[in-house]
Amino acid sequence: MKILKVNDLISIKRSVEAGTSEQQAAVKTIIADVRTRGDEAIRELTEKFDQVQLSSFSVTEQEIEEAYGKVSEEFVAIVREAAANIRSFHEKQLRPSWMTTEENGTILGQKIIPLDSVGVYVPGGTAAYPSSVLMNVLPAKVAGVKRIVMVSPPDRQGCMPAAVLVAAKEAGVEEIYKVGGAQAIAALAYGTESIASVDKITGPGNIFVALAKREVYGDVDIDMIAGPSEIAILADETALADEVAADLLSQAEHDPRACSVLVTPSMALAEAVSAEVEKQLTVLPRREIAERSIADYGAIYVTADLEEAVEVVNQLAPEHLEVITADAMELLGKIRHAGAIFIGRYSSEPVGDYFAGPNHVLPTNGTARFSSPLNVDDFQKKSSVIVYSKKAFMENAEKIAAFARMEGLEAHARAVESRLKND
Amino acid sequence: MKILKVNDLISIKRSVEAGTSEQQAAVKTIIADVRTRGDEAIRELTEKFDQVQLSSFSVTEQEIEEAYGKVSEEFVAIVREAAANIRSFHEKQLRPSWMTTEENGTILGQKIIPLDSVGVYVPGGTAAYPSSVLMNVLPAKVAGVKRIVMVSPPDRQGCMPAAVLVAAKEAGVEEIYKVGGAQAIAALAYGTESIASVDKITGPGNIFVALAKREVYGDVDIDMIAGPSEIAILADETALADEVAADLLSQAEHDPRACSVLVTPSMALAEAVSAEVEKQLTVLPRREIAERSIADYGAIYVTADLEEAVEVVNQLAPEHLEVITADAMELLGKIRHAGAIFIGRYSSEPVGDYFAGPNHVLPTNGTARFSSPLNVDDFQKKSSVIVYSKKAFMENAEKIAAFARMEGLEAHARAVESRLKND
Repeated sequence: MKILKVNDLISIKRSVEAGTSEQQAAVKTIIADVRTRGDEAIRELTEKFDQVQLSSFSVTEQEIEEAYGKVSEEFVAIVREAAANIRSFHEKQLRPSWMTTEENGTILGQKIIPLDSVGVYVPGGTAAYPSSVLMNVLPAKVAGVKRIVMVSPPDRQGCMPAAVLVAAKEAGVEEIYKVGGAQAIAALAYGTESIASVDKITGPGNIFVALAKREVYGDVDIDMIAGPSEIAILADETALADEVAADLLSQAEHDPRACSVLVTPSMALAEAVSAEVEKQLTVLPRREIAERSIADYGAIYVTADLEEAVEVVNQLAPEHLEVITADAMELLGKIRHAGAIFIGRYSSEPVGDYFAGPNHVLPTNGTARFSSPLNVDDFQKKSSVIVYSKKAFMENAEKIAAFARMEGLEAHARAVESRLKND
Repeated sequence: MKILKVNDLISIKRSVEAGTSEQQAAVKTIIADVRTRGDEAIRELTEKFDQVQLSSFSVTEQEIEEAYGKVSEEFVAIVREAAANIRSFHEKQLRPSWMTTEENGTILGQKIIPLDSVGVYVPGGTAAYPSSVLMNVLPAKVAGVKRIVMVSPPDRQGCMPAAVLVAAKEAGVEEIYKVGGAQAIAALAYGTESIASVDKITGPGNIFVALAKREVYGDVDIDMIAGPSEIAILADETALADEVAADLLSQAEHDPRACSVLVTPSMALAEAVSAEVEKQLTVLPRREIAERSIADYGAIYVTADLEEAVEVVNQLAPEHLEVITADAMELLGKIRHAGAIFIGRYSSEPVGDYFAGPNHVLPTNGTARFSSPLNVDDFQKKSSVIVYSKKAFMENAEKIAAFARMEGLEAHARAVESRLKND
């Protein structure tokens, strides 16, 4: 692994996949087709892309029951425990509507309520990601969203992975459709005969899904267009090289464009981790992916001291940050930009991916400077509430009218004055 | 004004201005130019578009002092009172970072901190909008953003409106640049020699500003691309027709594409308001704009009863909603989708535009279904914090590794197990 000085600091920003113009055109065509022909278009596109003919897209109760038969009891138990942890962490984010009352009768406040409906996209393909189901569905559930719809592409037998169906059931999803790709996003955004539209779409997907989300954004809300995953590890000489290396590789195995960085004032640790990474790489099942990621986007930065190391981390604004130093907790106050912060050697990043409770949907590509992990706020919205009494109004009407006139908005001033005239 | 039945209900969604391909290309060229040539490009573009040569873009302390000399004492007093109200309402939105501790040593939480820096765009042109300065700057200030930058195009004398400068000073802005258009957005997003980049850009602007914000989105955050303004008034027979008409027109005078709608179960009110609108229109300074808006996007819907009227409002999801009925407060619980809700006849919409405290930057175009007024959360971000103790880790490590393996991510499982091996 490359060992660099801080003045060689490379941005972790990688260009967001914009897709080819062919892909963009294909997505636009699919969306227009679904808007025009609804279910018929979905049926044809599913046959074309997923190579299966479906009479109904809806997953039945029986299919879900059968899914439970296909997974181990141990798996169900782990999913339940993880779901309980995730639910508990997100419940603590709930905020009540609030109001203030003033003596002159004014009431001001924020009415905070859940979105009506949310759609969660779950990617298909070779692997199943039940953790993604939990992390996307549970915050919406906790927020109080009444209608949560899950969509995911079917395999050639017209089935979905059992693990995904079990996770959906455990998370409380009651509406699941076997539809994937841009056609699924179009159905969620605009509705078809059998799939009613939703207000917000979340969840990861391939380039077609990402392009479709970007295309429907505005008509519905979306979570984000996530980039490849990142980890930065801030460590001193007390860290164990094999653990640090293993954590770097756990990020690298996701994607050849994933980014794994160690920042340390210790040259000894840097060299030991570099050697460990090479060693552990050789026996990794997803070696090819991890190797490319480490070669292209991996780096070890050696800093003058811990303070400079923290500054490097803030400049990177990584998705995941592990802090493995003698006084890790004390550094927490200095860290300004990171999606999730894992403190101490027992807070290995996979602890957060699956189990601890905080969300694993995190801001990538340096956007931790201004974005947050997926959370309950993302599934609620606020309305301002303004109640002016006659007294409050009379006290302030002339000032408000004067302000409006100053901005050249006479009708605003007259709207206020119409009350004065009538009273 | 058109009186319609509910089955003629028209969506208030109007197509968001996407700009012509020439405008899009022009914006891309400007952004690329500013990224390459920095201040030199800004200087040339300002000369081209604003027809003024500037040696420095920075507004000086002296210019601000002079601005105070150009506005009335009354104006300064109103701005101060409005600012105090806005500050107070937004301070109530502040949330602390929080954590939970478990007996096994686990600590989980959210670290909630302000963004480092924010840029506020203030449009130029014929009118000055000091209220827009207050509404964009104060939430960022309350959130704790340290660096708030304001940009606005200079006039041909190289000046900015005195009212805008005074509002900026009162709101606590310490960095103001005379730069407008797409070049200002580019400078804020990527920085130049004299203007350092920011993390988020808010504020309204013309089509070039809107296109530029869309273009830089992702590299920095933006607030939203606002559509034309809307008001819906939900009223029964107790409402006074001239007040309702005046409020509808206060929206209509903003923009020929603004949308003003009355929803009422009372045909008598509908007819009276329709007549009042025509009457008041004839004596309005911005008559031409308001007339086009009312003709193209104005409507009165007569419903079977109040319940149906509420349902219509929820379907419209308007930016502003006034409720002028006998029991207005009681309807609050039934209203699901509106940016700001004004209760009772004394809560005329301009009360909220300028003075009451809640923000006037609101979701338009039906996006109140999933979006919120500009608020303190928009200028803060969260980081998840995960601290697993040895005990917590040992209790759960095997479950976490099993979950990772189930998803085919062997390096994740090994990262966890590296700790077991070392202990």
